[in-house]
Amino acid sequence: MDSIGIGLIGTGFMGKCHALAYGAVKAVFGDVPRPRLEVLCDVPQDKAVEFKDQLGFARATDSWEDLIRDSRVDIVCITTPNKAHKEMATAALAAGKHVHLEKPMALTLEDAQALTLQAEKAGVRTIVGYNYLHNPAITHARKLIAEGAIGRIVHFRGMVDEDYQADPDLAWTWRATTADAGLGTLGDLGCHLVSLATELVGPVESLIAETRTVHQTRPLGEGSLERRAVENEDIASALLTFENGVHGIISTSRSAWGRKSYIAFEVHGTKGMITFDQERMNELRLYQNHGPAAEQGFKTLLTGPAHPPYGAFVPAAGHQLGFNDLKVIEARELLRAIVEGRAAQPSFADAYHFEAVIHAIARSGQTGTRIHL
Amino acid sequence: MDSIGIGLIGTGFMGKCHALAYGAVKAVFGDVPRPRLEVLCDVPQDKAVEFKDQLGFARATDSWEDLIRDSRVDIVCITTPNKAHKEMATAALAAGKHVHLEKPMALTLEDAQALTLQAEKAGVRTIVGYNYLHNPAITHARKLIAEGAIGRIVHFRGMVDEDYQADPDLAWTWRATTADAGLGTLGDLGCHLVSLATELVGPVESLIAETRTVHQTRPLGEGSLERRAVENEDIASALLTFENGVHGIISTSRSAWGRKSYIAFEVHGTKGMITFDQERMNELRLYQNHGPAAEQGFKTLLTGPAHPPYGAFVPAAGHQLGFNDLKVIEARELLRAIVEGRAAQPSFADAYHFEAVIHAIARSGQTGTRIHL
Amino acid sequence: MDSIGIGLIGTGFMGKCHALAYGAVKAVFGDVPRPRLEVLCDVPQDKAVEFKDQLGFARATDSWEDLIRDSRVDIVCITTPNKAHKEMATAALAAGKHVHLEKPMALTLEDAQALTLQAEKAGVRTIVGYNYLHNPAITHARKLIAEGAIGRIVHFRGMVDEDYQADPDLAWTWRATTADAGLGTLGDLGCHLVSLATELVGPVESLIAETRTVHQTRPLGEGSLERRAVENEDIASALLTFENGVHGIISTSRSAWGRKSYIAFEVHGTKGMITFDQERMNELRLYQNHGPAAEQGFKTLLTGPAHPPYGAFVPAAGHQLGFNDLKVIEARELLRAIVEGRAAQPSFADAYHFEAVIHAIARSGQTGTRIHL
Amino acid sequence: MDSIGIGLIGTGFMGKCHALAYGAVKAVFGDVPRPRLEVLCDVPQDKAVEFKDQLGFARATDSWEDLIRDSRVDIVCITTPNKAHKEMATAALAAGKHVHLEKPMALTLEDAQALTLQAEKAGVRTIVGYNYLHNPAITHARKLIAEGAIGRIVHFRGMVDEDYQADPDLAWTWRATTADAGLGTLGDLGCHLVSLATELVGPVESLIAETRTVHQTRPLGEGSLERRAVENEDIASALLTFENGVHGIISTSRSAWGRKSYIAFEVHGTKGMITFDQERMNELRLYQNHGPAAEQGFKTLLTGPAHPPYGAFVPAAGHQLGFNDLKVIEARELLRAIVEGRAAQPSFADAYHFEAVIHAIARSGQTGTRIHL
Repeated sequence: MDSIGIGLIGTGFMGKCHALAYGAVKAVFGDVPRPRLEVLCDVPQDKAVEFKDQLGFARATDSWEDLIRDSRVDIVCITTPNKAHKEMATAALAAGKHVHLEKPMALTLEDAQALTLQAEKAGVRTIVGYNYLHNPAITHARKLIAEGAIGRIVHFRGMVDEDYQADPDLAWTWRATTADAGLGTLGDLGCHLVSLATELVGPVESLIAETRTVHQTRPLGEGSLERRAVENEDIASALLTFENGVHGIISTSRSAWGRKSYIAFEVHGTKGMITFDQERMNELRLYQNHGPAAEQGFKTLLTGPAHPPYGAFVPAAGHQLGFNDLKVIEARELLRAIVEGRAAQPSFADAYHFEAVIHAIARSGQTGTRIHL
Repeated sequence: MDSIGIGLIGTGFMGKCHALAYGAVKAVFGDVPRPRLEVLCDVPQDKAVEFKDQLGFARATDSWEDLIRDSRVDIVCITTPNKAHKEMATAALAAGKHVHLEKPMALTLEDAQALTLQAEKAGVRTIVGYNYLHNPAITHARKLIAEGAIGRIVHFRGMVDEDYQADPDLAWTWRATTADAGLGTLGDLGCHLVSLATELVGPVESLIAETRTVHQTRPLGEGSLERRAVENEDIASALLTFENGVHGIISTSRSAWGRKSYIAFEVHGTKGMITFDQERMNELRLYQNHGPAAEQGFKTLLTGPAHPPYGAFVPAAGHQLGFNDLKVIEARELLRAIVEGRAAQPSFADAYHFEAVIHAIARSGQTGTRIHL
Repeated sequence: MDSIGIGLIGTGFMGKCHALAYGAVKAVFGDVPRPRLEVLCDVPQDKAVEFKDQLGFARATDSWEDLIRDSRVDIVCITTPNKAHKEMATAALAAGKHVHLEKPMALTLEDAQALTLQAEKAGVRTIVGYNYLHNPAITHARKLIAEGAIGRIVHFRGMVDEDYQADPDLAWTWRATTADAGLGTLGDLGCHLVSLATELVGPVESLIAETRTVHQTRPLGEGSLERRAVENEDIASALLTFENGVHGIISTSRSAWGRKSYIAFEVHGTKGMITFDQERMNELRLYQNHGPAAEQGFKTLLTGPAHPPYGAFVPAAGHQLGFNDLKVIEARELLRAIVEGRAAQPSFADAYHFEAVIHAIARSGQTGTRIHL
Repeated sequence: MDSIGIGLIGTGFMGKCHALAYGAVKAVFGDVPRPRLEVLCDVPQDKAVEFKDQLGFARATDSWEDLIRDSRVDIVCITTPNKAHKEMATAALAAGKHVHLEKPMALTLEDAQALTLQAEKAGVRTIVGYNYLHNPAITHARKLIAEGAIGRIVHFRGMVDEDYQADPDLAWTWRATTADAGLGTLGDLGCHLVSLATELVGPVESLIAETRTVHQTRPLGEGSLERRAVENEDIASALLTFENGVHGIISTSRSAWGRKSYIAFEVHGTKGMITFDQERMNELRLYQNHGPAAEQGFKTLLTGPAHPPYGAFVPAAGHQLGFNDLKVIEARELLRAIVEGRAAQPSFADAYHFEAVIHAIARSGQTGTRIHL
């Protein structure tokens, strides 16, 4: 396979990120078919045309159905608001296209499950945008854990926060509705943390959780006296039991002033500890109970060529990858999976398991009871 | 009152710390009666005598009952293993002495309650060694919160870890038994975090928790093949609801490699955030949603004379207080309370509320159910 | 101008970086002509062909002269070893092409000067790869300084280190010769720091310096007993006087174990201080003598959309740019300069002044005397 | 020797620090004679009396001559403004007393030399208050270097800053005069850095330096229109050559906003690097070129019992020593030197070498020429 056609739905935050990733992936890695940026879809048509020129696509459309039908499109990238994911992904799978879907997969777990089942039957490759998983620092953490560098895992803690809903005076938007947004901070942020916890520690077996809506109503517009209810959670926390018996805790907030991309975790082992914070995404901290006590301490590993695939971007350590680089690695994963005829990671099936956890947290937050996955 | 007599039971970690604190408190603060180091008690008598000379006490004894009876002793400092706290404090109160007791107050909440009730009737001053509360950085955090610097509190997270029980090959000791040690990490470490959470956010109303014994048995001695069960928890975590409705999450481990005195927390407010870590005890981090977005960020406040009572130790900022200095502030609090005829903070009554929380966590960890305080 | 032809000489570290940058710049910024990746040059021809495919160029050649002559090439990117810069840039200017040259411009200051004079007459746009200047954090630092946020500048300190020549057993290479590499750490690293110092504080008026070759000989190959002399410096430091009278110090080492991309500086002002470290390139630290003493401290600003042009890459703060993103900003600067008919920053003339400083440091290191620029 | 009499001149920052140190040193270490706090001297007499009570001295006087003559005084602690050091130390030595002198020893190097010669003849023990040398983190750094943990030293960088003279509107005081204060930032801060550089790397052989008075005049009082000249330096920097050939740079400022007790250095070796910052005085950072590249990084060592004499203060790592604890270690060093009949470190002779460097820096700053020590 020499090249592969890309159709991208959406031109926002993640749309641009996908366009950049598929534009760069061949140059960065070499070992993939060259993506052809075939069709870009957005509404209205004018916007699609404008971004087509900027992002370097061959054609523009305001019809996502047309994009999916386009015979030159092999991969459909879906970066629209969450509400549309289900319908578009269903159609793309039905059309026999590979699907690169942004997270969360769908508003409800039922929809995520339906997509997963459909994908299994469709015989195409799927991947979901849990792009923090592809950070070389995280890949190295997984390698260290697998090699026993910190012994047997005994505890996990994770937090993921931003502050885009911290301002009490912020206007009400569709993000506040379960009908349009689904979950709150769990869908936006919490699912990323679950993806990391799952990959580092293993699947979650059961949990008990609490959720809070900090700002229960918001003004209908800036300065408006009319207010509307916020239907989904600003904060959620859970006590987890992983299938391997490990106890963990996680917590997420979209109303955490000062946190911009805080995805922090600690993995406690019988021989050491690993910690990480996405706001310093090129650093991994490692403690090992080796050597004399006087020289034990947390080591800050700066990612570099010794942490693949960092070296494909920059051949010198410590020079720093950025957020957009993570999507390039994700795009390569899908392309390699297509070439090799294997499942990409994380596939719909993988992502379904991540998202089952956030929905369980939301449910436990409502019922106050333990949920078994 | 010109001077006041101190009787100290115990010469270990905390015993020495008390001796240093009462030796320094007059010189540091000036505004207290001069402590006279009257009697030091330990067993055997030889040890008491040796430490009497080093620590500067007038007399030594191997009888704590004699120490309490000594008419020149006004304050009884109890720094023995937890198991002895109840009996000694009971006797000291009965003898009409002020009591400076190390935490936790007792092995069981019932004993802590009994002591609290007795103290209320005894008409003396009591204080419990929750010394992290007296860090000028913490005092400043409380002031900032009270002044509204971060708005209304909406969330609390805290962690407290050490690694003194992280090594799987460590020998079994009395610390592993509920009969001699009571709780595990909750009694050693968790209660400190609860004291901070309570002072910063308010009293806890209810909680649900999980606990784990990571190392379920330990060898009877180094290299021994015989192993004995560890009866108390290595790790505990809880979801908290404070009386004011705030949701929080706390976690503690005594088996966390690399953590030496990790007492870290975040207080999330509607206008900002405060974070702290005891391993950098002279720093407080503050984010406020003030001014232009381009200049918002977490500010690292280095404690100094602007954060009382730091200036009593060093008149220049950033020069750093140490762990032992915190006990000096605590000793002053008790001495001032005695002079002013008011309750010291945290008194037995205050500490009882902290310890009710850790016992509730332990209970919830066993039953899996929500506990209301 | 709708599009613009790119010819790239070199496929190493910086060659790939240029290819990625020109491949992404239109998609990221929109406000530039679309680069057409026309010709890629490397030797042997096979290598050029292989990378042409990977990097997405239309044609490959092993003749840089042919590349320069190619009428579809408008911008010549020169990323070869330093030794070749002079001849290639001279030819490109002579052919009337815009030139994007990696630093340092040339092995000697005389050659850099000759290029600068030629460029002025050629009437084309030039830019030199001082890409750290284009970090949004640095741009924001310049803005803060210009606005008086830290008052009048009174002192500057800077350090730039890596460890690629730290290992005493590393084999000798052409990098060790003045004939092929020119300066040592000053040419590789020091010039970047000078570029930052100049942009933040102003031009350097005079300096006095010391240099050291830490590893005076190196084995001819791994494990070889034959050794050859290292002719250029591993470490250099200087005391600077800027034209505005400010006193500064800078230091650089290519033999600094643990430093991977350490470019750290402090700008001291009469009202505050700014500090930065490239190993955390998305953070800027700012201290201002505002407000109550108890709330003064260094603030960590995480770059975001409030720090242009960060937002062109990611619309959410704290998500992190990477090293390669800086080259995209640099490419845009050249393209915008071409469109607007203005000098790009830093042009050959700007870079000549940076490089005059590193050559003066080298000279002062040899003579031990003060050099006036 | 069972006990030893202390006479303390001065009740300011350092006076209180000495009183606390001699009050605690026996309890902390045990292995020293018990200090008897005999006489406290300050003017006026009222102040001496007031502090005598607070600090726990037996007698008060306003005559330092009387204090020195007092037969119960064995050690004279001199913590007065620098101007008085020479005369008082001379008298104390003449009276056959051991001397604990705060730094700098004297206003001029000639006076420091005279004191050193006198001390050698006097046959008593002397120590100078370079107390950062006694930080367990520094002691450990010296041990690591001695053991070859970072190989052969090849480079040293150090900075020491505070901001007590950063405010341009601060009123003029005696600190601004050479007659009363001697050197500026070099005498207050720079000498500490030199003491560390000397102990870690070795003696300085030659240097070339620059100095600046940032605020050349200051108002005579707050808001006054009359201004007086500042005679000594606010900032000083130097390029150093150590006797062992190592190249180093140091810089100091008393006008560095945000720096409260910033004493930061880097020691570069052929096998690793050590860095330190006094504002985090319980941490030492160590990089070693050991093991796989993917696991190399700077390790943060938190001081603890493995770093003597930390354990004498607290038996648990990471609990933090404070600034005042360093003076306790220094007091113990003098007391042990007296008991063991050996020189204390740093003695007058050691300190003379430190201070020769700061005076050389000042001189080079005036003459612009290289100074050989």
